[in-house]
Parts: sequence; structure tokens; C-alpha cells
Amino acid sequence: MSFLLPEPVKIICGMNSAIIVAAGKGTRMGPDIDKLFIEVAGVPVVVHAWRAFERVQEIGHVVVVVRAGMEDSFRELASEWGMKKPFSLVAGGRERQDSVWNGCEALPPETEIVAIQDGARPCTSAAVIRATLQAAREHGAAVAAQRMVDTVKESSDGAFIQKHLDRSKLFSVQTPQTFRVEVIREALAHTRRKGLLVTDDTAACEMIGHAVKLVLSSDPNPKVTTREDVPYVDFLLRNPLPRPAG
Amino acid sequence: MSFLLPEPVKIICGMNSAIIVAAGKGTRMGPDIDKLFIEVAGVPVVVHAWRAFERVQEIGHVVVVVRAGMEDSFRELASEWGMKKPFSLVAGGRERQDSVWNGCEALPPETEIVAIQDGARPCTSAAVIRATLQAAREHGAAVAAQRMVDTVKESSDGAFIQKHLDRSKLFSVQTPQTFRVEVIREALAHTRRKGLLVTDDTAACEMIGHAVKLVLSSDPNPKVTTREDVPYVDFLLRNPLPRPAG
Repeated sequence: MSFLLPEPVKIICGMNSAIIVAAGKGTRMGPDIDKLFIEVAGVPVVVHAWRAFERVQEIGHVVVVVRAGMEDSFRELASEWGMKKPFSLVAGGRERQDSVWNGCEALPPETEIVAIQDGARPCTSAAVIRATLQAAREHGAAVAAQRMVDTVKESSDGAFIQKHLDRSKLFSVQTPQTFRVEVIREALAHTRRKGLLVTDDTAACEMIGHAVKLVLSSDPNPKVTTREDVPYVDFLLRNPLPRPAG
Repeated sequence: MSFLLPEPVKIICGMNSAIIVAAGKGTRMGPDIDKLFIEVAGVPVVVHAWRAFERVQEIGHVVVVVRAGMEDSFRELASEWGMKKPFSLVAGGRERQDSVWNGCEALPPETEIVAIQDGARPCTSAAVIRATLQAAREHGAAVAAQRMVDTVKESSDGAFIQKHLDRSKLFSVQTPQTFRVEVIREALAHTRRKGLLVTDDTAACEMIGHAVKLVLSSDPNPKVTTREDVPYVDFLLRNPLPRPAG
């Protein structure tokens, strides 16, 4: 009997929160280098990611999931870079999905929609964040996505092409991955119960059979993974959209 | 009776040639703009692509496939930018595969290996070209490829995720796509006979059951497709590898 559900109350109280996942080890950057703290365009990578949500008025609270022991460094970052929105810090878990779980546990109880963001993804636009909030409100789950530009082939061994894939059906997905809180909680609870390892939050969602809306954009939204990514990301951040044509 | 085949002669005479496919209309760049002639880092896009093969000593001849009527413009380009290797110009066909076919018809008869390059791909490194020549000599067919960095999903309608793909098995492919001449000739003849439309030359190769070697690289090798691609490509060309770290 759907009229018994407290839907109207949720709509009135519904808050949008963000979880910034900044608990990764990022070993591909080299030993003793935390990619989240590398300065790009004069600002640490994770501060760019955090600031993107500072700029979106609809976001009421930010949870930053950090490596245990790093809380003070992040409090200093927030102060140094003048973060204005209320935030909380929480220690991450063993795998990314455990970190997201901990982030969900730390959300303000009035949160209705949560946007989950890679801390190493510094170029995400306010427009994309807003579009995922809107789509998650409508469909329960949404993800920033892009049409595949390159031709894609499948190979099990990485040596020879085994199969040509139909590019028109392929989409790369980034973050934010944005959900109604009850959807991502149920999805992550399911993966925990079953002991499954998922590569991203939408994969957890797919496993409980909940459809995930693709929110398409052509704005570059790269992740800083290796040293080679830094110059391009630096270029993007110094030349915000719309960029000069050449 | 394989000893009757002129194999030893071919090995002695074997030449590496390049085909630069520069016959596309490139309508996504806007009306009346030929993306191949856009100057990036001070040099037209197609000249960058051509020059990449000028720099590889193992390449003996370059065939440029152009739109019918554009031959004089390309002859001027060659003169203006000081191309040293012998080249020939040939008019393209209706589809990309027809243009490549015409390019193959114009190859010097002593060509043993042919590297086929998108004219709109200006950042291809000499190292990648050489590696595909070597792999094609060994395996008959090879393609410049990269491991997939992003998470990839499948969706027929572009609205909702239908399937999560295993990224470890996915590779994006670029050009050069490099072949023993008899392999690409047989592959293209097959697609013509069957009236098939293929998205790239390795797809034609796969259709005749010839294995294609992936030549992996992490060097960016983008194609100029829209105006938005120009600033990034400009950045790459002005900052050749190894690029500064930040």
C-alpha cells in the first residue's frame, strides 16, 4: 500500500550529499607518492574533486573517506582551501566498496541522494554533478558516462584480437555515481553478504537488478592514475570549458 | 607446392610502405572545415601524420589517399613541409575501406608490409609505427592498441546500463594498422565480394580469420574528430614524450 510509505516526508527533507573516496593507495604513481596530494594547476588533486561539490549549491554535505590516520591532513586541507560546506571525515576500508560503505554510514540521516566521487578525478564539472543528482532522483541510480570514441576489441590474452565490439553500444563510465541512499545501501549490503568484489558502485547496483541511468557528457573527466596523466589534467584545469579551439 | 612461391625474392626486396588515409569528409568538425588542414602546434593535422612516417627510416614509400581534386593541395603540402620520402597520391573511394583499397592498388610492387594510418591522427610515435611493422612481419597483421583505462558498460539504447564488461579484456585500437600486403588485400577483397561494411582494417582481417596482433602502448594517439579535440592534441604535440610531470 504505497500511500503508507513516508515518501512526502522524504521529499521535503531530502538532502543531497557527496562522498569523496580518497582512501586509495594509488601505487601506480610510484612509491611514497600520494596522487591525491599532487598539485595540479596549483591545487592538490583531491581539493579539485572536493571543490567541484563545493560549487554545486544542491549539495548539502560532503563526506570524505580517507586512509586511517590521514584525518588531520584533510582537516588542514579543508581549512587551507576554505571549504564552506559542512563535511565529515571517515576512515576507509580494505576495498573501495568498503570505503564507500563507510562513507554511507557517515552520511547525515536526512540524505536522500548521494553522489559518490573518486578523489583522484579533479575535472568533474558542476553540470555533470547536477545531471547525475537529477537522474538519480528520477531513476534511483545514475552515472557520468561518455560515448566510446575509439574502436574497441576484446582479447583474453592481450596478444591477439578475439572479437570486434560494436562501439555504438559501449559507454565509458566515470564518477560521480549517484544514488538514492536506500539503493546504494542495499546494493553494497548485497555485495558484502555475498562476499563479492565489485569494480564500481554501479556494478553493485546492477547485481541487485537495479537499472542505472547513463548521464552522457563529452566533457573530459579523467582520473589521475599515473604520472603521465598529470600534464593532461593540468591542461584541462588551466583551460576550463569552453576551451580555446586551438 | 610452397617452394614454387617467390618467397625469397620478396624477403630480399621487401619494402615497408605507408598509406595515409586523408580522404574523409570529417563532417563533425563543422561545415566547410577540413579537419586535416587545421593547424595544430603550427602544422596542419595531416602533415603531422605524414611526418611521423618521414621520421621512420624503415618506411620506403608513402601513399596518401586524398579526396578527388585535392591532389594539388597535397603536392603543395609535401613541398611546403619538405617531405623527403617518395610518395604517391591517389583518390579515395566511397567508404574508408574503398580508400584503403585504392591506396593498396597504388603501393610500389616491392612493398611487403604496409602501415595504414588515419590522416587525422597526428600524434602517433615512431616507436609505435616501428613496433607494428615488426609485429606485422611476424604475424601478418598488427594494430596500435591501448589497455582500457575507464570502466566500460554496454547499453543498446544509451539510456540504461545493460551489462558490465570486463575491462581487463578490452583494448582500444588506433592506427597504424599494419599488414603483410597479401593479408590486407585478401581481407579487403573479401569485404568487397561480400558487400560488407567494416569499421576498420583489422575488422576486415578478422572476417577472413586472420589473427591480428595487439601492439600495446600507453602513449596517447588520439584522432582529431571534433573542435574539442584540438586543444588536447595541440598540447600533446607541443609537449612530446617524455612530457613534464606537472
